[in-house]
Amino acid sequence: MAALLPFTVTHKDPATSARAASLTTPHGVVETPAFMPVGTCGTVKGVAGWELDRLGPQMVLSNTYHLVLRPGVERMVQLGGIHRLMGWEGPILTDSGGYQVFSLAARRALTEDGVVFQSHIDGSMHSFSPESVVDAQADFGVDVAMVLDECLPFPVEPSAVDPSVDRTLRWARRALSRAEERREAGGWAGGLFGIQQGSVDPDIRRRCSDQLAAMAFDGYAIGGLAVGEPSEVLHEAVDFCAPMLPRERPRYLMGVGYPEDLLHAVACGVDLFDCVLPTRSARTGKAFTSRGEVVIKNARWADDDTPLDPDCGCPTCSRYSKGALRHFFISKEATSVVLLTIHNLYFFLSLMRGAREAIMAGRYGEYRDRIQSNRNMGLGD
Amino acid sequence: MAALLPFTVTHKDPATSARAASLTTPHGVVETPAFMPVGTCGTVKGVAGWELDRLGPQMVLSNTYHLVLRPGVERMVQLGGIHRLMGWEGPILTDSGGYQVFSLAARRALTEDGVVFQSHIDGSMHSFSPESVVDAQADFGVDVAMVLDECLPFPVEPSAVDPSVDRTLRWARRALSRAEERREAGGWAGGLFGIQQGSVDPDIRRRCSDQLAAMAFDGYAIGGLAVGEPSEVLHEAVDFCAPMLPRERPRYLMGVGYPEDLLHAVACGVDLFDCVLPTRSARTGKAFTSRGEVVIKNARWADDDTPLDPDCGCPTCSRYSKGALRHFFISKEATSVVLLTIHNLYFFLSLMRGAREAIMAGRYGEYRDRIQSNRNMGLGD
Repeated sequence: MAALLPFTVTHKDPATSARAASLTTPHGVVETPAFMPVGTCGTVKGVAGWELDRLGPQMVLSNTYHLVLRPGVERMVQLGGIHRLMGWEGPILTDSGGYQVFSLAARRALTEDGVVFQSHIDGSMHSFSPESVVDAQADFGVDVAMVLDECLPFPVEPSAVDPSVDRTLRWARRALSRAEERREAGGWAGGLFGIQQGSVDPDIRRRCSDQLAAMAFDGYAIGGLAVGEPSEVLHEAVDFCAPMLPRERPRYLMGVGYPEDLLHAVACGVDLFDCVLPTRSARTGKAFTSRGEVVIKNARWADDDTPLDPDCGCPTCSRYSKGALRHFFISKEATSVVLLTIHNLYFFLSLMRGAREAIMAGRYGEYRDRIQSNRNMGLGD
Repeated sequence: MAALLPFTVTHKDPATSARAASLTTPHGVVETPAFMPVGTCGTVKGVAGWELDRLGPQMVLSNTYHLVLRPGVERMVQLGGIHRLMGWEGPILTDSGGYQVFSLAARRALTEDGVVFQSHIDGSMHSFSPESVVDAQADFGVDVAMVLDECLPFPVEPSAVDPSVDRTLRWARRALSRAEERREAGGWAGGLFGIQQGSVDPDIRRRCSDQLAAMAFDGYAIGGLAVGEPSEVLHEAVDFCAPMLPRERPRYLMGVGYPEDLLHAVACGVDLFDCVLPTRSARTGKAFTSRGEVVIKNARWADDDTPLDPDCGCPTCSRYSKGALRHFFISKEATSVVLLTIHNLYFFLSLMRGAREAIMAGRYGEYRDRIQSNRNMGLGD
């Protein structure tokens, strides 16, 4: 079996379970805690690769589901793989597509072998198996691949959870075998993360974690959260889910979330995050700031000559006023999406950089409390 | 009367009327020939100010008509003027709005005093006079303002041209008086360009030029072209219009055009250009290249791992393949607009930089012929 991606926990916060660590991938070292910008279809929406370089994310995320449908695996290979497509030579993780098959596909049928589904783009039929999804990600040349899992909705019929988790575990085993074959065959040296499921049932989450931990995954994700449950439920679930996962491997909370959710999860020992929130919010004119959220179209900003966030060092804040950003947004100028996206990504990336520094200084709790109390001061909308 | 913006012709091509020159504005020196990217509503669509810095245009253009309607003159002042709004500290020229009143406004009524028109955005009524348009541009703090003119359609009833040009000339005189007042009052040190009109009638163009030349404008524009006439008509008109304008002042061909049109006009002694072509084409997936135009959605590019233009040094060509750009365009990703816009602007800016270098080397004709013959080779679509 090929060696796992090197992962070292370098600092532990004394008062919380927060930790600073580094994960070495074929395209560079990922320093954690880290937030991954989302580039669903092979590009972070509106952000050129050289802008991404300047923002300096530790890793970016793209989507197997979307890329398999378009441009397709063969074409991805022909075009030089995922790094060449994205115009980004840093670490890339791809979601397996499990979540998207359940949330986006027009129709789907689940069997022990995998899932057959209809494309949301053109209605064409496709199938995913645990093996085909690993193959696609290996063919793309990703740094971290994710196993195919079944993502349950919230709330869910309790009796449905156990059989679903059993299948997710059988799929995880098959995915890992295929990944080991691919790594041994050469040409791909990425890692594979397993995904813990089990809805919000601690016993099932525990059983799932224990069985995954017995398999040699490069990292472990918490899946099936941020699917519509209230914030308190999410936080409680992270409280018990995170410590179940092996401490000597990276922990990744999928699809989460608001700054407060990230700060909470870091305190629980989570290392990696991804979420469409900063990029999607930018497209609806919402900016995240150290003093709370700003809804840029609001009339109160029309004559405001100050930046979005007085404490922000991002390129948008360094040269654009809220009044200018509002004018661009109201005028439906693409520049407003570009400028707000860059600001929001900078905010999320800085939040995690700050968390890492605070952990290294042994003062994570203080950092979290200061950020949260500033954000509650209510400069925002 | 305040001094005119310094303008020096530094090189003349021996075989054509092409010239290299420099125009000094409050926000820097404009080296010509130069192409001005268009930022209609106060931003070059999809391009952040720092990207504009990297592209390095000599001057950018924005639109008085659009900015007066939204955000409005008072708000422009409150937001710190046009440079602060655009996030760009280099030279800015604004079109007077004459062209937009005639092409965009829902309704308009022309009088000797000016024009009353209805906003294409919300139907509100507005009026422009030669004086109000200078005031707006001075309030914005532009480096070069344009006079209000009447832009005739093509073709036009011949008997309509003389009276229209007479009014444009009276308006030019009034605009100049107001600009001189504003400069003497302090707080604004920009220049004002007059606009030659006269449809495609050489005698009327001559009369208009002579009368404008007797007024102390900082520069002279050729207006009323690129309004739908065939390319041969445009080229012939530039042939006779350009040399009529004072040689000791910058000449600006408004709203033109294709690379071939620019190369032709430079040979006639034109110094400045603006056009929406590179930015608007990007939004429809068309890229300008040294080998002709590329329509990125075409299936032939789907598996193409090479850049848009093998001879291009732009950031898009340095890291994205045609296949990737096609995938982003087909997927309706905003990144495709950003990447194609930057490529197209780079192409137009390089074209004019190359023209300037060729003029300085005394080999402009050769340069023009080489560019045109490469573009006719037909790598494009």
